Amino acid sequence: MPERLLVVGGDAAGMSAASQARRRRPAAALEVIAFERGGHTSYSACGIPYLIGGLVEELDDLVARTPEVFRDRFQIDARIGHEVIGIDTKNRRVRVREIQSGTEYQEAYDQLVVATGAEPRRPPIPGIEAEGIHGVQTLDDAVSVERSLEGGARRAVIVGAGYIGLEMAEAFVLRGLDVTLVEQAPQPMTTLDLEMGELVADALREIGVGLRLGEEVEGFDVVEGRVRSVEAGGGSIPADLVVLGTGTRPASGLAEEAGIPIGPTGGVRTDARMRTEVPGVWAAGDCVETFHRVSRKPVAIALGTHANKQGRVAGINLGGGYATFPGVVGTAVSKICSVEVARTGLNESEAEAAGFAFGSVVVESSTRAGYYPGAEKMTVKLIAELQTGRLLGAQIVGAEGAAKRIDVIATALWNEMTVDEIQGMDLSYAPPFSPVWDPVLIAARKAQERAEDGWTDAP
Amino acid sequence: MPERLLVVGGDAAGMSAASQARRRRPAAALEVIAFERGGHTSYSACGIPYLIGGLVEELDDLVARTPEVFRDRFQIDARIGHEVIGIDTKNRRVRVREIQSGTEYQEAYDQLVVATGAEPRRPPIPGIEAEGIHGVQTLDDAVSVERSLEGGARRAVIVGAGYIGLEMAEAFVLRGLDVTLVEQAPQPMTTLDLEMGELVADALREIGVGLRLGEEVEGFDVVEGRVRSVEAGGGSIPADLVVLGTGTRPASGLAEEAGIPIGPTGGVRTDARMRTEVPGVWAAGDCVETFHRVSRKPVAIALGTHANKQGRVAGINLGGGYATFPGVVGTAVSKICSVEVARTGLNESEAEAAGFAFGSVVVESSTRAGYYPGAEKMTVKLIAELQTGRLLGAQIVGAEGAAKRIDVIATALWNEMTVDEIQGMDLSYAPPFSPVWDPVLIAARKAQERAEDGWTDAP
Repeated sequence: MPERLLVVGGDAAGMSAASQARRRRPAAALEVIAFERGGHTSYSACGIPYLIGGLVEELDDLVARTPEVFRDRFQIDARIGHEVIGIDTKNRRVRVREIQSGTEYQEAYDQLVVATGAEPRRPPIPGIEAEGIHGVQTLDDAVSVERSLEGGARRAVIVGAGYIGLEMAEAFVLRGLDVTLVEQAPQPMTTLDLEMGELVADALREIGVGLRLGEEVEGFDVVEGRVRSVEAGGGSIPADLVVLGTGTRPASGLAEEAGIPIGPTGGVRTDARMRTEVPGVWAAGDCVETFHRVSRKPVAIALGTHANKQGRVAGINLGGGYATFPGVVGTAVSKICSVEVARTGLNESEAEAAGFAFGSVVVESSTRAGYYPGAEKMTVKLIAELQTGRLLGAQIVGAEGAAKRIDVIATALWNEMTVDEIQGMDLSYAPPFSPVWDPVLIAARKAQERAEDGWTDAP
Repeated sequence: MPERLLVVGGDAAGMSAASQARRRRPAAALEVIAFERGGHTSYSACGIPYLIGGLVEELDDLVARTPEVFRDRFQIDARIGHEVIGIDTKNRRVRVREIQSGTEYQEAYDQLVVATGAEPRRPPIPGIEAEGIHGVQTLDDAVSVERSLEGGARRAVIVGAGYIGLEMAEAFVLRGLDVTLVEQAPQPMTTLDLEMGELVADALREIGVGLRLGEEVEGFDVVEGRVRSVEAGGGSIPADLVVLGTGTRPASGLAEEAGIPIGPTGGVRTDARMRTEVPGVWAAGDCVETFHRVSRKPVAIALGTHANKQGRVAGINLGGGYATFPGVVGTAVSKICSVEVARTGLNESEAEAAGFAFGSVVVESSTRAGYYPGAEKMTVKLIAELQTGRLLGAQIVGAEGAAKRIDVIATALWNEMTVDEIQGMDLSYAPPFSPVWDPVLIAARKAQERAEDGWTDAP
């Protein structure tokens, strides 16, 4: 009889694990069943803002593989509309509810992958459950936002100016809505330092987004079950539609109830091979915590690319191979219309929390040679350890072509390079692509000059 | 009395050295004189194709700093139209000819920087000195090409399909000329391997460039001193204008005559601080040879970004600081209309020459998430050492956004990463910027899979 692998959660991490395990072990050796409570498998949640903004035409475009594909091409039984409601790790069984019928049943496993994803943080604000207030985590959320738009929504309020909030602001602007963004911090994008966040604020204002910074949402005005306005900063903002961009947390409740150890971040704890501390139970994706290679501390970062990699690692190991997930350095990228934003490593407050003594530089340069058409402004911030000059983190805000340079810095960070080492690197140069000194090199050079001067503020 | 620094060559390397030395030592401590035989200082030779193509409007746009700026802002005496014709290293003197008047004079130095640049290789083909046959190394070359164009040239033949040849092909296409490219190799861009070069050939054909691959130029048909056609491959190609893209070599003749040691590549030999073996004599830029960090061998690569860095290093050291140039990994980037091309490290023939046993992968993926508007094809080739999986080199051909990814690979190469380490890196992901696995990671993953299978060609 084949071994049986059950997967809880049918998105990036879960289905990567399932596919990789299958690649290495045929159906005769390994039976694979995946349970997904939603209506879709393996979709790009990161694509939802572009679907709503009209840049992506069909919801189906965001689905990489349907349950039919998994069944026919991979012999994986992917059951949508099936929610795992309990895990019995002692007897290696899960309890499943078929959502439509309410029927419950049990399935036994030899190996289990927990890939339950993230869930939106819903601040305990009165009225937050009203109609017209949406998360944007799942394709089902996307459908309900679209329904609001087609129902004639004209004024959108977004609560929280993180990545999702900003991408949804762009989407609504593209759809012609009046958009207001409410953020309790004094800047959008709090994963950036203040001066870099202010560049993002400028970009938002430029595309006509109303910015209410430093304001907390106190409540929602709800009429007949539907939101009519958002109360914030002592005033009221009319809203036909509200989106919550207030972040997510690991959806680790199911694992926790089953006694699977949870880390300090709220994510399921795993080793580098994605094994939990419970025999036969693995975990991957937004529900786990991972290792930050700069702070050397656990972090929970919900991001499709990590979920894919972690799922793949779990699947290779489940299939009899050997793979490890090496942790993260906190790289992220986004755009608001023509302004690109990226970061990696630690920002100033994170560096402080991690106990580093550090200095920083902010350098403005150009995406291309100054004389080449389309050369536009980009700003790079580097943070480096005082005693050694080792790079700790970076942030970029700029025009087209700016943000992907964060990957060069992430690679340098991964290798624990100093700013002195970085400034000498052989990065590509041609006028359509870069000034003769790439902006990354210019920033490293300035940081090294500051380091040589002992990071004094002398002119 | 101040010390005296003389600089031979007033372009990127020489003027970077002069400026950096000045920054650290005021005019009272250091007198700086730079000699430039051409008519311009500190210009971007790399920008010439874009000037000719009409993307850059004015020749002056390519000049970063004029002699007047050097004099007024930096107290640097930059003498254009002055050619250094001899160096007496024993008595620390140079002989200078004022080109226009023919007057010769001597100047003494305490420190000397040789920054004489590169010179075009002119194959010994009968007729190559005819009018209408141009190099594209200097702004003066640009002026003479422009004069040919304004004189009604309609048919351009480019000899040599390297970076300059390709960029000039684009420029002439933009100006509406009939363009033929003659290359003796079976592919354009021989710094790439054959299958990647073929992608570049496709791009050239697509914009209407006539490609004569595997054909050698045998001669030029010259009428009244002016080129009329190019004889190649047994036939004749009518030409109003010919551009030589046949590469360059270090212009190290002056240094060699002065007894300054030259390396096996023909470039002036220096240490990491850019000192030659002759006391008081430094060298920087296209005239020197540098250290290749992958092959561990000297190479001569003419590129503005290296010249700038080396000049800066020399200048810091001359100014009393301490700096070193850490060598190169052979990174380069270019574009032909909408197709971007980049490479770093060793290609297959270079890896073979350097004595590596290696395997390679060629992976096609996408510049953005497949569903995002503007997602287009890009191809990544990775070359890795067989025994260790260490990355040795990479090549990229693809649509907008493809080529600058070479910098991520160059940074990985700089740090001697293996493909296994690269595949796990935390590179940025969002649908407008990348598929959920960045193309660099996909290529590294495939290379690692091949390595695990022992690089067999099993399906």
